[in-house]
Amino acid sequence: MLVTRLIERKRDGGELTQMEWGQLVTAYGAGEVPDYQMSALLMAVFFRGMAHAETTALMEAMRDSGASLDFSGLAKSRLDKHSTGGVGDKVSLVLAPLVSALGVAVPMMSGRGLGHTGGTLDKLESIPGFRTDLTLDAAKAQVERIGCALIGQTGEIAPVDKRLYALRDATSTVDAIPLIAASIMSKKLAEGLSGLVLDIKRGSGAFLPDFDRGVELARLMIALGEANGCPVVALMTAMDRPLGRACGNVLEVEEAIACLHGEGPPDVMEVTYTLGAEMLVMAGVARGVDEARRRMEVCLSSGKAAEQLARIIEAQGGDASVVDDPARLPQARMVEFYSAPRAGVIARVEPRAIGRGITALGGGRRTMDDRIDATVGFVIRARPGDVVKVGEPIATIFTRDEAGLAAGMAALAEAITIAEEADPPLPLISHRITKDGVAVYESEPWVRTAEYPVYKGFGEQ
Amino acid sequence: MLVTRLIERKRDGGELTQMEWGQLVTAYGAGEVPDYQMSALLMAVFFRGMAHAETTALMEAMRDSGASLDFSGLAKSRLDKHSTGGVGDKVSLVLAPLVSALGVAVPMMSGRGLGHTGGTLDKLESIPGFRTDLTLDAAKAQVERIGCALIGQTGEIAPVDKRLYALRDATSTVDAIPLIAASIMSKKLAEGLSGLVLDIKRGSGAFLPDFDRGVELARLMIALGEANGCPVVALMTAMDRPLGRACGNVLEVEEAIACLHGEGPPDVMEVTYTLGAEMLVMAGVARGVDEARRRMEVCLSSGKAAEQLARIIEAQGGDASVVDDPARLPQARMVEFYSAPRAGVIARVEPRAIGRGITALGGGRRTMDDRIDATVGFVIRARPGDVVKVGEPIATIFTRDEAGLAAGMAALAEAITIAEEADPPLPLISHRITKDGVAVYESEPWVRTAEYPVYKGFGEQ
Repeated sequence: MLVTRLIERKRDGGELTQMEWGQLVTAYGAGEVPDYQMSALLMAVFFRGMAHAETTALMEAMRDSGASLDFSGLAKSRLDKHSTGGVGDKVSLVLAPLVSALGVAVPMMSGRGLGHTGGTLDKLESIPGFRTDLTLDAAKAQVERIGCALIGQTGEIAPVDKRLYALRDATSTVDAIPLIAASIMSKKLAEGLSGLVLDIKRGSGAFLPDFDRGVELARLMIALGEANGCPVVALMTAMDRPLGRACGNVLEVEEAIACLHGEGPPDVMEVTYTLGAEMLVMAGVARGVDEARRRMEVCLSSGKAAEQLARIIEAQGGDASVVDDPARLPQARMVEFYSAPRAGVIARVEPRAIGRGITALGGGRRTMDDRIDATVGFVIRARPGDVVKVGEPIATIFTRDEAGLAAGMAALAEAITIAEEADPPLPLISHRITKDGVAVYESEPWVRTAEYPVYKGFGEQ
Repeated sequence: MLVTRLIERKRDGGELTQMEWGQLVTAYGAGEVPDYQMSALLMAVFFRGMAHAETTALMEAMRDSGASLDFSGLAKSRLDKHSTGGVGDKVSLVLAPLVSALGVAVPMMSGRGLGHTGGTLDKLESIPGFRTDLTLDAAKAQVERIGCALIGQTGEIAPVDKRLYALRDATSTVDAIPLIAASIMSKKLAEGLSGLVLDIKRGSGAFLPDFDRGVELARLMIALGEANGCPVVALMTAMDRPLGRACGNVLEVEEAIACLHGEGPPDVMEVTYTLGAEMLVMAGVARGVDEARRRMEVCLSSGKAAEQLARIIEAQGGDASVVDDPARLPQARMVEFYSAPRAGVIARVEPRAIGRGITALGGGRRTMDDRIDATVGFVIRARPGDVVKVGEPIATIFTRDEAGLAAGMAALAEAITIAEEADPPLPLISHRITKDGVAVYESEPWVRTAEYPVYKGFGEQ
C-alpha cells in the first residue's frame, strides 16, 4: 500500500477500496502512516467526498481499532442519543436518567465542548467528584446495575477515531460529512447499541447550519447504523437560538436538575420528551409516542427520574446531594443582570455569539488543551419573539471578575438583537428522518399546551 | 496567526495575505507549524489554487528563507536554464559548457531524478569523483573563475522550499502549478540570475502532459521572474518520445560528450542550440539567434565547448579525462540488443514506460532515499516514424544481470509500439512564450538542414 497513490486517487476523484481504507486505518493506528499524509488525504476527502462503501469501510475500521461493549448477557434494549451540538443543549442530562429510569439501558458516550458548542462531559464534571473516565468494564457493570453510565470516549473505544479527530481539528478538516458520520458511528456502534436517536441541529448556531447538509449527515448515519444492526431515527431541532435559558456548564446542570423536578424550560422538556419517546418506542418499553410521553411525565412527577440522576452521580463518584440542593454546585463569584438597551421585540438570540461569550468568560475551549471554569455563563430569559421594555433585565451574567463581566456584557449585546419586529424563529422540532426518508414533523396534540411556548410578539398568546 | 484559520480560509476559496504567507513560511521554517497542518493547506491549494499575489508571496518567502548568490562584482550576465523534466533530457550537460564557453556566467542548479524522469545531478555524479554538493561560496568562486558551476540545491538555498518539496512529494501535492512555479523560482532567483530560459516539456512523458497547463506554468514563472528583475523566456518542447537516444545516467553523459564533439543526435542539438541562442541573446553576447547559432556551432567544432566541460569536471573534483575517453565512465555489466518483434513503422516510444524501465533496472528512484546504479539504461535507436524490419535491432539494454535484462526487455516491449502506420509526433519545439504572450515557434531556416530529422516514414526524406 503506497499512501501517496491513495492520496492521489482520492485527490483526483477516485475511490479507495474497502480493503485500502481498512489497511490505511490499521497502518495509521500502528504509527506507520504519518499525520502529514493522513491530513492531506482528509483534505482531499473534504473536497471529493466519499462513496458510501468508503464511509462504511472507514467507520468499521475505526470502530474495530478498539474494544466494544458486549451486552449480550443483558435482556434490556440499549439506546443512546447523539446531538450534533449547540448552545444550551443539556438534554442528555435530563434524557439519560429519565429514559433509564423507565427500563432502557443507556450506555451514553459524550464529548467535550469545543469552539462555540458545549459538551456533556464538561457539564457532568462540574458536579463535584463526578468522574467520566470509567473503564469500559466499569461502564458496562454500571449499566447492568443501574441502567445508565455517562462516559467519555475512553482510549479503549475507537482509538484511531480519537487520533483522527484531533488531527482533523488541527487541520480544518472536521467539516466533512462522511468523516463526521464515520467518526460518530464508529463510537456509537462500539457501545453495542440496539438503537440510536439523533438530534440534528439546524440554524445559525448549529455545527452544520444548512438544512440540506444536516439531512445528508442524518441519512448517512442512519444508513451506517441500519447496515450494522442498529436502527437510527433522527429529529431535526432548532439551533437558531440557545436551547433553554442556561448556557454554561454549572448553569446547565442546574437547569437539567430543574427539568427533572418538573421546573424546566418548555423547549428543553419538549426536545427531551420527543427524543425520549423515540427511544422508549424503539426499546419496546412503550407502544407509541403518546404512551411514552405519559410514562415520562409520570416518571418525572413521581421524582423517579431525579432519583435516577442521583443514583448515576453517586455511582460515578459525584456528590449526589446536588440533585436536591443545586446550590452545592460550584458557584460563580460575580452575578450581574443584563438589561434591554432599548424597547422592542427580541429578534435574535444568536447562539454562536453566546458560545463565544462563554469562551471569553473562561468557560469554553479554543483548543482541546484549554482548562475551563465551569461556573461562568449566562442565563437568558429573553426568547425570540418576546416584547421587552428598555432597562428590563433580560439575561444574567455569571463570571469571575470585572473583565469577565465586560466580556459578558459585550457578548450579550452582540448576541441579542432587539428590533421593531422579528421573523418567527425556526420550529423547535421540524423534521423526523428515518431510513424511509425525511418527513415534516407533525407535532402531537400535547405540544400546544399552556406549557409550550407561545412566542409572544407573534400573536400566538 | 492561527494556522487552522488560514487552512480554513484557503479551503473555502479565500486568499491568504502576503503577510500571512510570509509568517507561515517563517513559522514552518522555525518548526512552529507542524507538517500535518502544512500538508492540509497544500492539498487545499491543490484544489483552490493561489492568486498571483499569494504565489509571489510564497515564492519570495521561500527564497528569503535561505542565502542568495551575490554576483554584484561580476561584469558578466548570469543565466540558467530550467527544464520541467523528461526522459533522455541531457541538454543541461551540453548547454552549460557551451554557453559558458561563450562568455555567459552559468550558475546552474539542478535536481535529482524522481519517478519516471531523470535528474542532472545523478548524471553528473556518474562521472567518477564529480561533486555537486558545493557550498554557495565555492560555487560563486567557480563561476567567477571558469564561468560555470553545476550544483544541487544546497541547504543554504531556499531551505523551506526544500522541506516543502519533500512534504509535497509524500502527500501527492506536487502537481499544483502555483506550488511548482513558486518552488522553482524561489531557487532560481536565489542564484542571482540576470535571465532564465525555461524548457517546458509537453506530451505524454512530460510532468504536465497537458499543453494548457504547461503554458500556465510557463506564464506564471515568467511573471514571477519579471517582477523580480529576472527576464524569462520559455520554449515548449516535445516529450512524447525520449530526447536523443540515450536514457540512463552514464549513457546520457556519454551522449552529452558526443554532442560536444559534434556527434550528438540532431534533436538534442536542436533543443540545445535553440535554448542556447535565447541565452546568448539575453546575455547580450549575440545580437540575434542566427549569430548566436553560428557562434555555438564554431564553439563546438573548435573543441572549446568540450574543453569547457573538462574544465568544469576538473573544478568539481571529477575525472576530466572522460571527455576525451568516455569509456572511462563506469560501464554496465551486461549489454544486449532489443530487436523489433514485427515489421512496420515505429508509432510510439513512450517516455514514461522507458523511465519506469530505468527504475526497474535500478537506475531510477521510487523515493528520494533510493540508491541508484548509474550504469544501467537504454539506447534507443528507433524514433517515431522509422520503418523497421522484423528482428532489426532497435535498442540496446544496459543492465547488471539477467533479471534486469528481462525487466528491460519488458519495458521496451511496453514502450515501443510498431504499427502499420503512425501519427506524426509533436513538433520538437512548438511554442515560444514570453511576458508578451505565446507564439507558435517559427523554426529558422537552419532547422531544415540535412542534419535535422527527417522523420522517415512520413514522406519527408
